[in-house]
Amino acid sequence: LRWDLNYLYLNKSVPHLEGPPEPLQFYRDWIGPNKPCIIRNAFSHWPALSRWTPIYLREKIGSKVISVAVTPNGYADAVAGDRFVMPEERQMSFSSVLDIIEGTKTGVFYVQKQCSNLLQELPELVDDLEPHVPWMSTALGKSPDAVNFWLGEANAVTSMHKDPYENLYCVISGEKHFILLPPTDRPFVPYGLYQSAVYQEQDGGEFKVIDNVDSHKVAWIPLDPLDPDLERFPQYRLARPLCCTVKAGEMLYLPSLWFHHVRQSHGCIAVNFWYDMEYDIKYNYFQLLESLSEVANGSS
Amino acid sequence: LRWDLNYLYLNKSVPHLEGPPEPLQFYRDWIGPNKPCIIRNAFSHWPALSRWTPIYLREKIGSKVISVAVTPNGYADAVAGDRFVMPEERQMSFSSVLDIIEGTKTGVFYVQKQCSNLLQELPELVDDLEPHVPWMSTALGKSPDAVNFWLGEANAVTSMHKDPYENLYCVISGEKHFILLPPTDRPFVPYGLYQSAVYQEQDGGEFKVIDNVDSHKVAWIPLDPLDPDLERFPQYRLARPLCCTVKAGEMLYLPSLWFHHVRQSHGCIAVNFWYDMEYDIKYNYFQLLESLSEVANGSS
Repeated sequence: LRWDLNYLYLNKSVPHLEGPPEPLQFYRDWIGPNKPCIIRNAFSHWPALSRWTPIYLREKIGSKVISVAVTPNGYADAVAGDRFVMPEERQMSFSSVLDIIEGTKTGVFYVQKQCSNLLQELPELVDDLEPHVPWMSTALGKSPDAVNFWLGEANAVTSMHKDPYENLYCVISGEKHFILLPPTDRPFVPYGLYQSAVYQEQDGGEFKVIDNVDSHKVAWIPLDPLDPDLERFPQYRLARPLCCTVKAGEMLYLPSLWFHHVRQSHGCIAVNFWYDMEYDIKYNYFQLLESLSEVANGSS
Repeated sequence: LRWDLNYLYLNKSVPHLEGPPEPLQFYRDWIGPNKPCIIRNAFSHWPALSRWTPIYLREKIGSKVISVAVTPNGYADAVAGDRFVMPEERQMSFSSVLDIIEGTKTGVFYVQKQCSNLLQELPELVDDLEPHVPWMSTALGKSPDAVNFWLGEANAVTSMHKDPYENLYCVISGEKHFILLPPTDRPFVPYGLYQSAVYQEQDGGEFKVIDNVDSHKVAWIPLDPLDPDLERFPQYRLARPLCCTVKAGEMLYLPSLWFHHVRQSHGCIAVNFWYDMEYDIKYNYFQLLESLSEVANGSS
């Protein structure tokens, strides 16, 4: 059996569009085919692009308490040794997060307000951006499930994973570096089952790993696409990673079920929109591929 | 490995829409998800619906010579024994085809002008219908590759197969009976390799099967969904056939790569539009499923 079919639908790099597309054309060219692209000039009218400086954000939301992911090494939600380790979730004021990012401190801090509605929780920022992406909402016939806010340090890394969302990722300042793998590369992506655990900073400043004893094991990807261990994961040789950088003012369309690994420049600010994916024929094909991959790799 | 995943995307029957859809909504709800539906009132404005009686057609195109598929049993392009047998292609005037359909004669006649442009070859009929389906052309961003004309007897059957087209099938008079299988049922559909042959009517009226000696073998589906031989093809038990009847004035959207078997009422007239399919992620998933099915079933 040859897994390495010639995937006609894939581009060799992530193409750029020079402006916001028509909804139908975007559906036909990118959402339906499940292909990523970078859209320029799609949110030039957002005041956030010029306004969101540290001074402005301190003034507007400095006293607001938000949830921050803290880790010793920048890896929140990632495999470390034989554990799947989640960050310490710490409540702190937005100002103190900015202090850390502008200064120095042990640990890596990452504001990653996932599964939350940025505009409901930070109404002070509501005038700085739109609550959805109109042509995307029209194309999909629905509003986003979540609008997330991201602010982090250069060494805060999001390990390889996939989401059941059509994702529009808008970089407000700095830049984000993505490594993308199509869902059809699922057979080349190793998974393992890991005891889940959480980081906990000690008084001395070092971090301990505390097991979540009553949780199920977590299926996660142990492979680091920045330095893939091809002796342990030889099937990854057949994967077709696409790398791209999304700059301030640019928007990445990251299609549902694409694997992605994300890095960023220091202090990079981004907002993303999650639109629920359709559980359609593509999803069922993916499920089949997933169960085949599990059989082929002995449940990993 | 369980092939029989729960295909969330499938309906238990073919749904009806009560009027022509908006292009984007049709793309999102049916083309993208690759799901069939029947559209009512989609071509009520075509004069063909009331005009295309035998008398009118005799008058307009009666003297026109067209290509007709003739078989002893109604099966054109189908497996018969250890052969894949194609019909005798006979050139006859449209009037003589109507004589046969209205009278009696050995052999089954089927006008199936595939891969041809009805409106270029029969310009006499150009005022009776539209040359494309405007909302479909807008949705897909292209014109149809072919417009086909179908006229046949009650025992003219199209054996189970699939096409690389998005297909809109418009019944002008009579009715068509479809048995449909989704592309995700590919593992349950048996294929064999057959010597290709063609029917040839003899002077006595009986038909001989003549091998096409210099042609490659043809991969075709030997299974008859009207009477499936489950001892020979046990995997077909897992298939999920959908049956539907398309009546005069109704249009079937038959998505690309769906398997279909077609019967019709006597003298049924239909026109269909073939729009080239996209070779996108769905196509690549299908190819993978195809190669897996070949491995699992030993190249059949």
